[in-house]
Amino acid sequence: MKAAVLRAIGQPLQIEEVQLDRPGPREVRIRTVAAGVCHSDIHPQEGTQKFPLPTVLGHESAGIVEEVGTAVDYVKPGDAVVTCLSVFCGYCEYCLTGRPAICRKVETRRRRDQPPRISQNGETMHQFLDLSSFAEELLVHEHALVKIREDMPLDKAALLGCGVTTGLGSVFNTAGVEPGTTVAVIGCGGVGLATIQGAVIAGAGRIVAIDRIPSKLELAKAMGATDLVNAAEGDPVRQVRDLIRGGVHYSFEAIGLKETVEQAFDMLGRGGVATIIGLIPMGVRVEIDGEQLVYEKKLQGSNMGSNRFRIDLPRYADLYLAGKLKLDELISREIALEQINDAFDALRQGEVARQIIRFKQ
Amino acid sequence: MKAAVLRAIGQPLQIEEVQLDRPGPREVRIRTVAAGVCHSDIHPQEGTQKFPLPTVLGHESAGIVEEVGTAVDYVKPGDAVVTCLSVFCGYCEYCLTGRPAICRKVETRRRRDQPPRISQNGETMHQFLDLSSFAEELLVHEHALVKIREDMPLDKAALLGCGVTTGLGSVFNTAGVEPGTTVAVIGCGGVGLATIQGAVIAGAGRIVAIDRIPSKLELAKAMGATDLVNAAEGDPVRQVRDLIRGGVHYSFEAIGLKETVEQAFDMLGRGGVATIIGLIPMGVRVEIDGEQLVYEKKLQGSNMGSNRFRIDLPRYADLYLAGKLKLDELISREIALEQINDAFDALRQGEVARQIIRFKQ
Repeated sequence: MKAAVLRAIGQPLQIEEVQLDRPGPREVRIRTVAAGVCHSDIHPQEGTQKFPLPTVLGHESAGIVEEVGTAVDYVKPGDAVVTCLSVFCGYCEYCLTGRPAICRKVETRRRRDQPPRISQNGETMHQFLDLSSFAEELLVHEHALVKIREDMPLDKAALLGCGVTTGLGSVFNTAGVEPGTTVAVIGCGGVGLATIQGAVIAGAGRIVAIDRIPSKLELAKAMGATDLVNAAEGDPVRQVRDLIRGGVHYSFEAIGLKETVEQAFDMLGRGGVATIIGLIPMGVRVEIDGEQLVYEKKLQGSNMGSNRFRIDLPRYADLYLAGKLKLDELISREIALEQINDAFDALRQGEVARQIIRFKQ
Repeated sequence: MKAAVLRAIGQPLQIEEVQLDRPGPREVRIRTVAAGVCHSDIHPQEGTQKFPLPTVLGHESAGIVEEVGTAVDYVKPGDAVVTCLSVFCGYCEYCLTGRPAICRKVETRRRRDQPPRISQNGETMHQFLDLSSFAEELLVHEHALVKIREDMPLDKAALLGCGVTTGLGSVFNTAGVEPGTTVAVIGCGGVGLATIQGAVIAGAGRIVAIDRIPSKLELAKAMGATDLVNAAEGDPVRQVRDLIRGGVHYSFEAIGLKETVEQAFDMLGRGGVATIIGLIPMGVRVEIDGEQLVYEKKLQGSNMGSNRFRIDLPRYADLYLAGKLKLDELISREIALEQINDAFDALRQGEVARQIIRFKQ
């Protein structure tokens, strides 16, 4: 099968022939139908996150089950599935208390004595985030996928595997936004836009979108933001406080910067909750004004929207098919696998909406 | 009536004759039976917190209702009551959503055009925290007291008005500790000891008490701590992590220092919650390792245990009378109002348990 391989930091991906192993007892082989191109795919290429190379990138995909391992009864060949990188073990403390997104992943991580799941003439191709979606087929643990209703278009379904779930889940699962409350979202990229949509679906009253790029703010408005704040035009904390006296009930940070995390805390009203979705690089210390804790403000992290993806993704498919979740608007164009390097360039140049790889069937 | 008056920063309290006004429509006059001596009473004397002077200190008390205002029907003369400084308005957003501890206190704050509630031959005596308990009588808003069962000893009941409620409530209301979970409490003064008791009552599994003073750790053990960590003997975060692999579910900080707040966050396991009870002085920035947010760790403030004191204090009286809440052990000695300066000295020298002023009846 064909796959987009990253061989060295800084180099373009190369379309190469690679081989999948046969499914182990709890594994599933999937024919890839669609795969989103996400910022997290660029980090290994740029070397900002270290991953073993060579690797097949891609982690946001949907497809059709081709073959299942002997112990799998959750899916069967022909089922439509979405992959998810929040692979869960199903038996650790976190899985068993409703928090599979922070699972210890004891068993589901590939065993060291297992042969490589992807290889090329005997050479190991490392599997990216237990998935590797930029390939015509995937071989993943049965706990790295979720079955999806058959009338769900798979290009839209692929989007549910990462950024959309992260945004929606941070609102529904991590923060638990209540109807009529006030929400601020810092950063209107893919995750931030999904967070805004989550706030709309959860019935938030005022939803303030914050970014420095006018086109992103316009997209935020199209997603349902009621107020727009351009952070390039002055302190966003003051701008939010001018809009909403006393500060907001819920703030969300969807970037991962020290400065914006601190802004998320500073724009809270008393009793407010700041949810940090963005991944903060190692070594970055976040500073908050300790005195404000007496007002019972809260700072919390959200790991991929605290998703329970087997539960959440079918709900999100229902929301899409009911016309309540916008996914079409998030897709800027469809490409072939061979155009992956162009897609990376577009992403680097600030393309906000998703580019979707459509695999020939 | 007699009261202990603070006239200037750094001076001893003086026992003087002062006068109470008559109760306004929603006010209650109480004959003071017992009043605890708390660190918060010392701060205005030392000037570390600014309050208008002269003032009658004291804020943790119990007594008997003597007279009620025309609009009061919650209590009647002869009722036993405990005072509480978390006076609530009962109609703001926070009161009406179950969070009266962070009430905006719009109406219950004394109106500026009201004459002084305490005076001396026409000179204003400022009321401390809407209470002023170091006096033979109190004149307080009906929302600054709670009726308590008649068989509850009033010296023990007085303790419920501040530190005990703060500690218990931080466990029950703010953090919501579940049975069998692991808890660490940093600081084993009055509030920390109550936090440990709260963890015991809530059914926590392991309860790690952390302090630098061996006698306080011994008290913590008597209250039900299962493990003791002397922070003077090495990094307490490492010591806690050696005891409880992976870190604790819940940590509590009952001091109010930057260093210990940061330790509370650092000793959490994934998904853990750090609850900050200690008051952090103005200007102090708390720093946390941003990367840890991906494990869904949470930092939150607790204002006096997120108390709903009209609801909580009767429950705590039930717990005491059922033998489940230790209060007798928290009292080191009973004194007369005239001994207040000796009591302040003892508190400054590290007396951990409460000294209770018993008023002559």
